[in-house]
Amino acid sequence: MVKAERVKATMEALGKIGSTERGMMRLAYSEEERQATDYFIAQCKAAGMSVRTDAAGNVIARRSGTCSNAPAIGIGSHLDTVIEGGKYDGSLGIIAALEVVRDLNDHGIRTQHPIDLFVFACEESSRFGFSQIGSKVLAGLITQKDIADLTDKAGNTIQTVFANRGLDFGRLGEAQLPKHALAAFMELHIEQGPILEGKNLPIGVVSGIAAPTRFNICVRGHAAHSGSTPMNLRQDALIGAAEITIELEKAARREMQHGTVATVGDIEIAPGAMNVVPGETHLKVDIRSISRTSKDRVVKCLYLFLDHLRDTRHLQIDCHLLSNETPVRMDPQMIDMFEKICQKQNIRFTHMPSGAGHDTMNMAALCPVGMIFVPSAGGISHHPDEHTDLAEIITGIDVLKAAVLERAVAEPTEKQV
Amino acid sequence: MVKAERVKATMEALGKIGSTERGMMRLAYSEEERQATDYFIAQCKAAGMSVRTDAAGNVIARRSGTCSNAPAIGIGSHLDTVIEGGKYDGSLGIIAALEVVRDLNDHGIRTQHPIDLFVFACEESSRFGFSQIGSKVLAGLITQKDIADLTDKAGNTIQTVFANRGLDFGRLGEAQLPKHALAAFMELHIEQGPILEGKNLPIGVVSGIAAPTRFNICVRGHAAHSGSTPMNLRQDALIGAAEITIELEKAARREMQHGTVATVGDIEIAPGAMNVVPGETHLKVDIRSISRTSKDRVVKCLYLFLDHLRDTRHLQIDCHLLSNETPVRMDPQMIDMFEKICQKQNIRFTHMPSGAGHDTMNMAALCPVGMIFVPSAGGISHHPDEHTDLAEIITGIDVLKAAVLERAVAEPTEKQV
Repeated sequence: MVKAERVKATMEALGKIGSTERGMMRLAYSEEERQATDYFIAQCKAAGMSVRTDAAGNVIARRSGTCSNAPAIGIGSHLDTVIEGGKYDGSLGIIAALEVVRDLNDHGIRTQHPIDLFVFACEESSRFGFSQIGSKVLAGLITQKDIADLTDKAGNTIQTVFANRGLDFGRLGEAQLPKHALAAFMELHIEQGPILEGKNLPIGVVSGIAAPTRFNICVRGHAAHSGSTPMNLRQDALIGAAEITIELEKAARREMQHGTVATVGDIEIAPGAMNVVPGETHLKVDIRSISRTSKDRVVKCLYLFLDHLRDTRHLQIDCHLLSNETPVRMDPQMIDMFEKICQKQNIRFTHMPSGAGHDTMNMAALCPVGMIFVPSAGGISHHPDEHTDLAEIITGIDVLKAAVLERAVAEPTEKQV
Repeated sequence: MVKAERVKATMEALGKIGSTERGMMRLAYSEEERQATDYFIAQCKAAGMSVRTDAAGNVIARRSGTCSNAPAIGIGSHLDTVIEGGKYDGSLGIIAALEVVRDLNDHGIRTQHPIDLFVFACEESSRFGFSQIGSKVLAGLITQKDIADLTDKAGNTIQTVFANRGLDFGRLGEAQLPKHALAAFMELHIEQGPILEGKNLPIGVVSGIAAPTRFNICVRGHAAHSGSTPMNLRQDALIGAAEITIELEKAARREMQHGTVATVGDIEIAPGAMNVVPGETHLKVDIRSISRTSKDRVVKCLYLFLDHLRDTRHLQIDCHLLSNETPVRMDPQMIDMFEKICQKQNIRFTHMPSGAGHDTMNMAALCPVGMIFVPSAGGISHHPDEHTDLAEIITGIDVLKAAVLERAVAEPTEKQV
């Protein structure tokens, strides 16, 4: 049994960093996120680990193995949050990974493979409209030029943001991990949906991850006086944006049997005044499914509707594809391993897809990957009300620890009996 | 004939103050608006006028009359602009008023009534979501407590904004004009619509002003992860806002024969991220008509639709009425006077309603009022592309000058022949 009090204390300490009245604010590469990674680094060092920060801002802490050339077993998640997020998304995976190492230390267990804890940089898209920068760079899925043009909402370029964190964007490529550096990667995460709670199950063994297809859509009409411009002479960019929002909802609802979802998360409106017909709008669009074909049908529907809007409302529309990722399957042997661990420990579980994207999908390019979910109270995530009961967290950590021990190959010592 | 070169030079000088790459930025009570009023004050003093600034920030410049107790003839408009506005809305009325006085000076014409030029403070609602503060206070239509809770987008209270401009909000009531202070009020303004240009007419004689009914609507749903929250379990506040936007357009289009218009000018979205279902939205709604009953039908339609949304989408909706003004008729004798002046000078004109609100509607509480429009190229206003040809401006000033002379009662002098 892992030490519930220690987990709770670590959660509380991390939960204070970036905490505001409206929720957690630890945007990627922010001062608050830096404080959280500093806290993590200090804890890892106290646990006897060696720590490095790579060129993308990922933190990698190593518990050495007895077999010096063996590839590592990776576990981890992220410490950045969305705007006004909660204390569990990402952080719980880091706390679980740290507790696995502390628990091995307590029991004096050595493993043949080293164990690497990963804090992935910029998992959330909240800052740049681009997610999982750290793990994508590690896995060699993106290079410097793929993200060189990113700017955040405040207009800061990614180069400036990196420089402010003491990172050199020009050396980003150095963060890519060599092939065979890892023997396996695992992540524990909150479900971020209502399924486990609804079925009253403590563990979800993830079968696959539904990767997002994302767009920035710019709708240009004509700004005009709201009082003196007759309805039939308007080119209202916000009406266009509203129709896109509703059309996307309809298209995703038609694909509900595939678990497909579509969201307009934000619309920026210019000039944005009470008495001016909006002249320009920018929409952030996110479409996801574990079925590639279902997702493609929603995207096709969006394209057709944009053409319809151009024709009927005489709006100029630019639809910029930000990312178009393919759903990723978890390694069948890892799924099988998690299943057997649960059965052995009498823990009830279900297989389930992940609607949310995770760093694990990128790590799949490097090594076999596996992932487990613990319940999200009310299905809530990306919100200050995120919650998972401590008992469920401990159950999750127990399963993760057993999996790490199996893959890292524990060596019996005197203490272990 | 007024001096076209002088008008052009004054327009150019004023057009530089608050000019940016994206249009004019002279928000009410801003530093830029102060610079514009300072420029106006200097011009008035150079034209021999006495100038005072009242407690609401209105500037009133007087050209004295020969009959010291006679009530004044007021002319004027405003110098504040919307966000990214043009150089004609408001400013042209000020330039025209100034030119009328300069022209009387050139010709050595004295009038029995004094002539008061008004620069009304905070005509646009762009700063506080509340329009025509200056003229409403002058006319006694609002008191301090009606606007004491206003804050701007940056979170500044109106008290702070006043203090920063050297105005004492606590003394606002002192700005109210005594009854019988004015014998008449007139305003020249750009049409802000496409009608005069469409009919190729230089002058619109305004019959009435369609006052706005305005709302702030707050839609509250539930912020949730955009990947892991199934479509049927969402309470998406932006979908609600989008449906309101489209429903309002439909309702106004059904009332098009009454010239009724409805606009959602801005939606603020929280938290506003790519991967979060929006939890809360705030809409700015503006509904206008010269027909009270037509406007009331649109408002009723809005209320019914909000109830429908509450029931079907389980959204919490607060609909806060900001203003609900009644259309104002221009004084029939003033309309008649403008008509006769145009006929006498062989200027083609039309009678027309104003879809936009103007300070003149408030001045109607004090004295008989009249208003004329000059064409807006492309029907464009509240936009950097605002334009009126100089020849049309001069025609407008000629008509205004004739009307002022008629009401202020010119006294022949030697110079006038």
